[in-house]
Amino acid sequence: MFSLHPQLEQDCFQLGDLPLCRLLLMNDRQYPWLILVPRKTDTRELLELDENDQKQLMQESNLIGQLLLEVFFAEKLNVAALGNMVPQLHLHHIARFHHDPAWPAPVWGKHPALCYSEKESDEVKAKILDFLAKKAPAFTAVQLS
Amino acid sequence: MFSLHPQLEQDCFQLGDLPLCRLLLMNDRQYPWLILVPRKTDTRELLELDENDQKQLMQESNLIGQLLLEVFFAEKLNVAALGNMVPQLHLHHIARFHHDPAWPAPVWGKHPALCYSEKESDEVKAKILDFLAKKAPAFTAVQLS
Repeated sequence: MFSLHPQLEQDCFQLGDLPLCRLLLMNDRQYPWLILVPRKTDTRELLELDENDQKQLMQESNLIGQLLLEVFFAEKLNVAALGNMVPQLHLHHIARFHHDPAWPAPVWGKHPALCYSEKESDEVKAKILDFLAKKAPAFTAVQLS
Repeated sequence: MFSLHPQLEQDCFQLGDLPLCRLLLMNDRQYPWLILVPRKTDTRELLELDENDQKQLMQESNLIGQLLLEVFFAEKLNVAALGNMVPQLHLHHIARFHHDPAWPAPVWGKHPALCYSEKESDEVKAKILDFLAKKAPAFTAVQLS
């Protein structure tokens, strides 16, 4: 049974599920920042996924990259599996801009997260869900308490 | 005709070619740090690679991850495509340790690179090439002036 790491649960909004991954929105208004978490237990590294899951992860990563380009007009994508603090395998996808607060450095550890207001996060989530409704028929929004 | 970005050429040793990628060793003795650069012109993002190249990149990434685990006894792998400063698509693979100077932060921008001595880099290269000779028959060492 898949269970999201408590740190990711605390830092992110859970948006829904693609065939392999739970999709999260990082609660940081400084960057459009989406995270894919394969719903596999005890997986820490990309290379621990089998060939089919790796292929599926690439497809879902392409979709999320395309979303950041088309919906948020990302100038550059940052895609990374780090996991030094949260051992559950998760793949960051961050839309970067020449005017963002960390540019050109990576975002991690650069500036503390600035949470979205409820209105802002509702707007951002709506844009994301609208894109996925059109481009990802296999996506299902999660109903979380 | 593939040409390595001058910044990567300056910062790294070029070790050789896998079917898709040039393999580089970052000249920073603080971390075992290998970089895969697909030999494609004008490619900036992972999602710009076609399906076959993405599959090949995953295979080469798995190989390099395995190398960092087996040869350098990595405690954690960091795998990332950032490219904010060097636009040529390149995929970092860094062996991380609880005792390394940046842990648990990502390595970028944390500490200036400390170059290997010639003896050290020769030893590290030899370990890498030895692993690849056994595990990657398609690898060819590059002869560079």
